[in-house]
Amino acid sequence: MEKIKLVSDYMEGCCPEILKRLSDINFEKNTGYGLDKYSESAREKIRAACEAPDAAIYFLVGGTQTNETVISTVLRSYEGALAADTGHVNTHEAGAIEHGGHKVLTLPAVNGKISAAAVEDYMKVFFADANHEHEVAPGMIYISQPTEYGTLYTLTELMELRAIADRYDLKLYVDGARLGYGLAAAAFDRENGSPLSAPDDAVDLPALARLSDVFYIGGTKVGALFGEAVVFPHGDIVPHFYTITKQHGAMLAKGWLTGIQFDTLFTDGLYITISTNAIARAREIRYTLLKYGYELYIDSPTNQIFPVVTDEFAAKLSESVDYGFMNSLPGGRKVIRFCTSWATPKEDVERLGEVIRALD
Amino acid sequence: MEKIKLVSDYMEGCCPEILKRLSDINFEKNTGYGLDKYSESAREKIRAACEAPDAAIYFLVGGTQTNETVISTVLRSYEGALAADTGHVNTHEAGAIEHGGHKVLTLPAVNGKISAAAVEDYMKVFFADANHEHEVAPGMIYISQPTEYGTLYTLTELMELRAIADRYDLKLYVDGARLGYGLAAAAFDRENGSPLSAPDDAVDLPALARLSDVFYIGGTKVGALFGEAVVFPHGDIVPHFYTITKQHGAMLAKGWLTGIQFDTLFTDGLYITISTNAIARAREIRYTLLKYGYELYIDSPTNQIFPVVTDEFAAKLSESVDYGFMNSLPGGRKVIRFCTSWATPKEDVERLGEVIRALD
Amino acid sequence: MEKIKLVSDYMEGCCPEILKRLSDINFEKNTGYGLDKYSESAREKIRAACEAPDAAIYFLVGGTQTNETVISTVLRSYEGALAADTGHVNTHEAGAIEHGGHKVLTLPAVNGKISAAAVEDYMKVFFADANHEHEVAPGMIYISQPTEYGTLYTLTELMELRAIADRYDLKLYVDGARLGYGLAAAAFDRENGSPLSAPDDAVDLPALARLSDVFYIGGTKVGALFGEAVVFPHGDIVPHFYTITKQHGAMLAKGWLTGIQFDTLFTDGLYITISTNAIARAREIRYTLLKYGYELYIDSPTNQIFPVVTDEFAAKLSESVDYGFMNSLPGGRKVIRFCTSWATPKEDVERLGEVIRALD
Amino acid sequence: MEKIKLVSDYMEGCCPEILKRLSDINFEKNTGYGLDKYSESAREKIRAACEAPDAAIYFLVGGTQTNETVISTVLRSYEGALAADTGHVNTHEAGAIEHGGHKVLTLPAVNGKISAAAVEDYMKVFFADANHEHEVAPGMIYISQPTEYGTLYTLTELMELRAIADRYDLKLYVDGARLGYGLAAAAFDRENGSPLSAPDDAVDLPALARLSDVFYIGGTKVGALFGEAVVFPHGDIVPHFYTITKQHGAMLAKGWLTGIQFDTLFTDGLYITISTNAIARAREIRYTLLKYGYELYIDSPTNQIFPVVTDEFAAKLSESVDYGFMNSLPGGRKVIRFCTSWATPKEDVERLGEVIRALD
Repeated sequence: MEKIKLVSDYMEGCCPEILKRLSDINFEKNTGYGLDKYSESAREKIRAACEAPDAAIYFLVGGTQTNETVISTVLRSYEGALAADTGHVNTHEAGAIEHGGHKVLTLPAVNGKISAAAVEDYMKVFFADANHEHEVAPGMIYISQPTEYGTLYTLTELMELRAIADRYDLKLYVDGARLGYGLAAAAFDRENGSPLSAPDDAVDLPALARLSDVFYIGGTKVGALFGEAVVFPHGDIVPHFYTITKQHGAMLAKGWLTGIQFDTLFTDGLYITISTNAIARAREIRYTLLKYGYELYIDSPTNQIFPVVTDEFAAKLSESVDYGFMNSLPGGRKVIRFCTSWATPKEDVERLGEVIRALD
Repeated sequence: MEKIKLVSDYMEGCCPEILKRLSDINFEKNTGYGLDKYSESAREKIRAACEAPDAAIYFLVGGTQTNETVISTVLRSYEGALAADTGHVNTHEAGAIEHGGHKVLTLPAVNGKISAAAVEDYMKVFFADANHEHEVAPGMIYISQPTEYGTLYTLTELMELRAIADRYDLKLYVDGARLGYGLAAAAFDRENGSPLSAPDDAVDLPALARLSDVFYIGGTKVGALFGEAVVFPHGDIVPHFYTITKQHGAMLAKGWLTGIQFDTLFTDGLYITISTNAIARAREIRYTLLKYGYELYIDSPTNQIFPVVTDEFAAKLSESVDYGFMNSLPGGRKVIRFCTSWATPKEDVERLGEVIRALD
Repeated sequence: MEKIKLVSDYMEGCCPEILKRLSDINFEKNTGYGLDKYSESAREKIRAACEAPDAAIYFLVGGTQTNETVISTVLRSYEGALAADTGHVNTHEAGAIEHGGHKVLTLPAVNGKISAAAVEDYMKVFFADANHEHEVAPGMIYISQPTEYGTLYTLTELMELRAIADRYDLKLYVDGARLGYGLAAAAFDRENGSPLSAPDDAVDLPALARLSDVFYIGGTKVGALFGEAVVFPHGDIVPHFYTITKQHGAMLAKGWLTGIQFDTLFTDGLYITISTNAIARAREIRYTLLKYGYELYIDSPTNQIFPVVTDEFAAKLSESVDYGFMNSLPGGRKVIRFCTSWATPKEDVERLGEVIRALD
Repeated sequence: MEKIKLVSDYMEGCCPEILKRLSDINFEKNTGYGLDKYSESAREKIRAACEAPDAAIYFLVGGTQTNETVISTVLRSYEGALAADTGHVNTHEAGAIEHGGHKVLTLPAVNGKISAAAVEDYMKVFFADANHEHEVAPGMIYISQPTEYGTLYTLTELMELRAIADRYDLKLYVDGARLGYGLAAAAFDRENGSPLSAPDDAVDLPALARLSDVFYIGGTKVGALFGEAVVFPHGDIVPHFYTITKQHGAMLAKGWLTGIQFDTLFTDGLYITISTNAIARAREIRYTLLKYGYELYIDSPTNQIFPVVTDEFAAKLSESVDYGFMNSLPGGRKVIRFCTSWATPKEDVERLGEVIRALD
């Protein structure tokens, strides 16, 4: 029997709605480089969803590429990006940010997040150094929503980060590689009366657009074949970002392929609808783990679940389940990750439940 | 009636064979980052087609990205790339090569090409300068096959470039964005007994693999949705090129999407088969133009045709045909471009013939 | 007998006035990084000489470093610098500009110079390309005053370049590595009633400050041990240029060493006074060459003289004179360079005259 | 009365021996760019002092520039440098290393140092990540000798770092901005029978050359006007490093100025002789502080002394002494720095003693 695969949220192709539209227009001749009608339609729908009529929107191919292109051009050459030490830009982007010339200035993550207070402390220490003109000047706060540990910034926290960004003239950039799962968690909890994702203090798209200087809406991990939509909610703050995407190898010749994917995801709320499956499945896994008494390293409300298990359990589990490894803990224990997606079948989660039961 | 669109060779999606396979495996769970079975199968087929069993092969997303990633990592920091002044890296890549830190050292193109003799002259002048250690050292010869003007290097010419590259310790890199059309032109001419592409002195894949240090096989312009296959025919000459593609934002999370496209293109000679349509259509356009007495700026044997027309003709033509503009000539004339592809319908070319006849 | 050395203008240490002051303050304790009193005094004197009271001024160490630091931070990432193909940034800076991420967009030099008309032609062709957003956008005009071939832009020409820069929103940057020799040539010609440097249409420091966006005053080749003064005549147009000089390795810890050198050069007109020696000596060489019938490749009014000589003459000359080689000409001829400086002794030039006479 | 200045070790010009030689040869004509006889002589003397006859040696201008030029060219593009979080490359170089494309991978400093064990732990965690090919690969260990906190690696520690570097194929690079003070401390302690610098387990120049892949000998802070000597003890491991220094703006036109300074410093042991003054003065300050019961934050054996003082003491002290601020501590205390140099007069230290006595 095939293993249950819960390694990541980018193991399948795309949601059927996208596949159908790609097939439908396959022989249509379109203008290249994102100047086509589908890209324009997608931009209009995203502007509407964000309540940001002046937003400038660009479709790039992948997350690391997007982070590098945005960060290296929003920042001035002597500036760096404040980020959680667990932030994707600091860990698994092969140094793309530094290759683009910028230092990632790390703050210790708490549950994958950084706080306005931590940013303020950093800035105070920075300015206390008489030689701070010899240091990398913080120019941006980088956060992920949801974070790499599945957690979510509340609306309150985001507003606090905005306030501190304003005080110190920092840009606020939100990496939304898994944004759909964050938005869907709040919707799920509201519907089910659960407080896990703090649905009464949740960040929605208009809030994100209002409070950030730039963010991206992830497609690759949320139902698209590939693609990330970069949103400058207050209009173009980087001149000629279009040319810049070309220069960074981030401009797809057949740009309509990305455009039509986002056009589909932002039609009739599909982006949230498909994300909700991931949340429902993740919660089932979480429930099972708690039922059997497993500790959760971080109690994530989104599509990633992080149990603490013994090395022995992990070894046995791997006979029938593909999961992710996060980090080792003292005493022969480790943190592993189950990751669901828009495409995770309910049966897979049920089978996982049986495996866990059997290993109990 | 809709305009006839002959602007470029990346206006449609992908060939039906690819679309079918993408649909077939859409819900299959695959390992990310190019470590999947389709990518591996595609690599094996390309190795076989190139008769290069030791070739290291990587799938990237687009052409500019590929050129930047290859050039900036094959070269050492103080080296530059010799290229035709009409070369894509010198003109329409938004400075990606320089953004990556390297100077494009231009040689005047002759029919879009550079010669071994021109390279040698450059090297002699370079070494004649007592201060050449203060200059950018040529470290690579960059050529496109076919060139941006649709022309082809003959096998003889490629061997001469290899010889001069060896003499001066230069790498030889071939940009094959439209490689399929070059390969198909020779096949077409051989079949039809035409000498236009010099089929008896043609460069095939094994020759390319034997004579170059690195080249790429274009997918975006030749039947794929996107994707370029970078081939290091003699094995990995750049350590950790895998990590480098990640760092350059050129690694697709769902790498199997590119893998399966190339796997399809390199099954049963599909890459050449579909390319042949572009050649047949281009030759029909060429025939019509010559019949009506139009001068060809460059007599391209591949899928791009470059007539010299009056401004008046160009204006009238644009009422019913979308074509490309290359450059202005004295005396109210200009060079325009008709570009065919794997998907160009025979009807479009027939309609173009009627338009040209009507304008005569 | 030792050879006559006319290879370059940076073969000696510094003018005696500078050496004395460096000795006088050797044990004085000064604040580092350019925040000392000598640097501040030098800035004031330069502002006065330029009639630019708002000028922001930074002292860097060398010319290539200065060009790279200025160009890469004045330009935005997608922009390039228009320059003569003979411009120093395009030839003998080991690709520093490209290493900094920017393309040098070359125009064919005429007597080492580029014209406003040539810039305008470039811009027209650029905008005529429907895909110019895929090209490197010209963002700057780079010129050298004097040029690498010793010639000078007239005030009229500089005003024309300013006008075209304004029309196309380009920055105008003037590389003044040998600026003193340009300024002194006009003074010399005015005093001697010679028209060679077009003294009635000459560019002085206030004109340079009025018409350029940034320029630098060369110290290394004009009497200092090292050092170049970057002048932003209209105030800081690059935020945190101070930090940027640190980041580019261009900030001297003991910044007062550069400050006091420029303070000295800009006291009592010393910069012009010492430069005048180079002009007087160069004119004597020019006179001798013309007297003996030698052709001048370019009739430079400054401190570099470029005779056309036979290979045979060049070989014999090198037995007693060290000179520079510029380029080969057809027919066994070559262009060589005699370069004088603030320190060139009159005796050396007289000895050269004898050598030329003897070879006649 | 003027304040006692103990802020840094680069407040004066150069040692008298250097000033004399610069004066003596001021009007001598020398070949530029480090190809002169003084530079060559200095290289020979450094090779002898290092017992490294094959060493390739280059003279650069400043420390940040040197670190950036070495690190960015010794590393491959996907590699980063392991360093103490207090390391100069991580703090006060304005992001020069990241601007050059490379991540500084920080380890928590212990007394300003990192250990082989900490490097090994880092490497193990790195390889334990199945996705480590998506991370920045450590390619180098960067250490400072002495460190930014004045401490010294012992010979034993350096050998351990070499061993771990070999095990993981890392380069070992030693930043010797204050190297003279480290070498002199051991000599001083040997002469005075003091164990403070662990003189029986001290790193001398031959050990440094034997155990590192590249290091630099600091001039700017140790008696020269400016200049750092980069030593590749086992020969050129970076091809064309000469051209690279030009490209990085690190090549001085009048290279003999640096050459003759190092030639002087490495004649008759001058480099150690002048450094010994700094050690003697620093020990006097240390003795005074201990006598009056001040806590030392780190008990540095070299030319930097770090007392812990109350904010009140610090404020009063600043009325008569210029000193450095390091960091704040809880409870109204802070760490300050007294820094001596080759030029610090004994009188200044005696006056400081009186000030401390008076404040007691």
